[in-house]
Amino acid sequence: MPTKKRVVIALGGNALQKNGEVTAEAQKAVAKKVGELIAELSSRYEIIVAHGNGPQVGNILIHEEQASSEKAPAMPLETAVAMSQGQIGYWLAQSIQNAFLRDGKNKKVATVVTQVEVDKNDPAFKNPTKPVGQFYTEKEALKLAKEKGWIVKEDAGRGYRRVVPSPKPKSIVEKREILDLVKSGAIVIAAGGGGVPVYRTKILRIIKGVDAVIDKDFAAEKLAELIKADMFISVTAVDYAYINFGTPDESALRNLTSREAEYYSKQGFFKAGSMLPKITAATEFAKKGKVGIICSLDNLEEALKLKSGTIITR
Amino acid sequence: MPTKKRVVIALGGNALQKNGEVTAEAQKAVAKKVGELIAELSSRYEIIVAHGNGPQVGNILIHEEQASSEKAPAMPLETAVAMSQGQIGYWLAQSIQNAFLRDGKNKKVATVVTQVEVDKNDPAFKNPTKPVGQFYTEKEALKLAKEKGWIVKEDAGRGYRRVVPSPKPKSIVEKREILDLVKSGAIVIAAGGGGVPVYRTKILRIIKGVDAVIDKDFAAEKLAELIKADMFISVTAVDYAYINFGTPDESALRNLTSREAEYYSKQGFFKAGSMLPKITAATEFAKKGKVGIICSLDNLEEALKLKSGTIITR
Repeated sequence: MPTKKRVVIALGGNALQKNGEVTAEAQKAVAKKVGELIAELSSRYEIIVAHGNGPQVGNILIHEEQASSEKAPAMPLETAVAMSQGQIGYWLAQSIQNAFLRDGKNKKVATVVTQVEVDKNDPAFKNPTKPVGQFYTEKEALKLAKEKGWIVKEDAGRGYRRVVPSPKPKSIVEKREILDLVKSGAIVIAAGGGGVPVYRTKILRIIKGVDAVIDKDFAAEKLAELIKADMFISVTAVDYAYINFGTPDESALRNLTSREAEYYSKQGFFKAGSMLPKITAATEFAKKGKVGIICSLDNLEEALKLKSGTIITR
Repeated sequence: MPTKKRVVIALGGNALQKNGEVTAEAQKAVAKKVGELIAELSSRYEIIVAHGNGPQVGNILIHEEQASSEKAPAMPLETAVAMSQGQIGYWLAQSIQNAFLRDGKNKKVATVVTQVEVDKNDPAFKNPTKPVGQFYTEKEALKLAKEKGWIVKEDAGRGYRRVVPSPKPKSIVEKREILDLVKSGAIVIAAGGGGVPVYRTKILRIIKGVDAVIDKDFAAEKLAELIKADMFISVTAVDYAYINFGTPDESALRNLTSREAEYYSKQGFFKAGSMLPKITAATEFAKKGKVGIICSLDNLEEALKLKSGTIITR
């Protein structure tokens, strides 16, 4: 049997939601389909799933903040990310396990709670941009800013929200443990929501959580590098990355060199916070002589064979 | 180097709280001490940590229920358990990792989100007894009972609460993955909060989450059995189990046979929901020819050498 290719699949947080349905039951129903696909593919690939958590951690934060009290204080964002890893990891692991059980198989699947190291000197810490949690009135927002040291910003006329830094991932704390599990034959769910952001303290060099949000594509790409994956795949709502998306000139990108991808990125063809980080992550991976892919769940199987999706190579 | 003994340590959910302080910062500060001890012991033992989650999942449920809305619906108990595993697992893993880092070491530590299988025919499902989440007025409680199918009960004059079943663990879904990690040299945090309760459906035999609470000592003991641990240790607030606890005749139990432990249990010497499940779990483990221990964090090190704590053997 030839060696299986090792593949890190970054699933959008929205990949667990359909029609904006956010109950646990609705999200589990969506996870079922994802699980079936991952289980099927795992006969031919070593698979590591890194997922987003935008809508899920958003709701956790809303609950934590709205119902916060002295007896039951709100958990900070970094801990809320860990909570969302437990939540989504459980749903995904169970959906994959059930796909095997339906097939009379019983393969290994594990969710590893993952911390991702960032640099406290990352310029993102000087310029928090990522809105998280609920909307507040100006008065409430300013009060929270004072009480908790939050940075708050007005959000497109909809009210005020807390904004947090979005630093780049430097390393994955649990990279060896994840790799051990992969090598033992398990499908591993890791680096959920971009990972719990931690940094190394200056003197003791210990790790400490920090309220920030790491882009899940960047974290998944870093994981792919560190565990020597062959492919990094960002799974999104569209089969391909496009240039001139949504215009009469729109054109699906199929095969790209990293240089071409960078050119299109610089030209502003990809939307920041949406397609741009996926392209950036896939390009970064491609520059290491590997394959970076952007595709949807529908064409994932063909994309893994390099027959569909946006395929970026060095 | 002789083979290290494999030890499953069940930490009480209260082991992460001091003086009832429940902020993330306060719980992390307590976790720091636990982490230092676990890190120290790991040079001589293979360690798997199973922790409780009572106070933590309680607060998650309060937040989820109080701030539930159509846009951000409350997560069910089973998913809340997974969330608490992410939360506490992150704190514990980081505290252990930091103990190593302070020492210039960098050993493997991983938290595995864990599902624990129960039997849907367990009599506990016919008689839910475990109160969870917030208190409600009678009117609210009856409304929720109707809307969500909850069983609610009046709780000692303090209001109404939901009660859920507390079935026995039958198996650990991720047992192989946990064992692989242990064998690769990692300290593993698993079966948090007794695990996410799942059962096998009748026809498809797939697994499905169920709102219930599995006793963390029973789940940890089951894990200890399945991964062939040498010792099962329930760490609690006292150095020993006692008979006639809190009376002038109180007497610490040091070495017990499983038969003696069962005798004392039947005589009602141990408090249900408190010392009794610890004794029951340790006795169950001892009956398999292994060692079951009850001790506190303070005498854990000596207890591992069988020089302190309540030591139960076959």
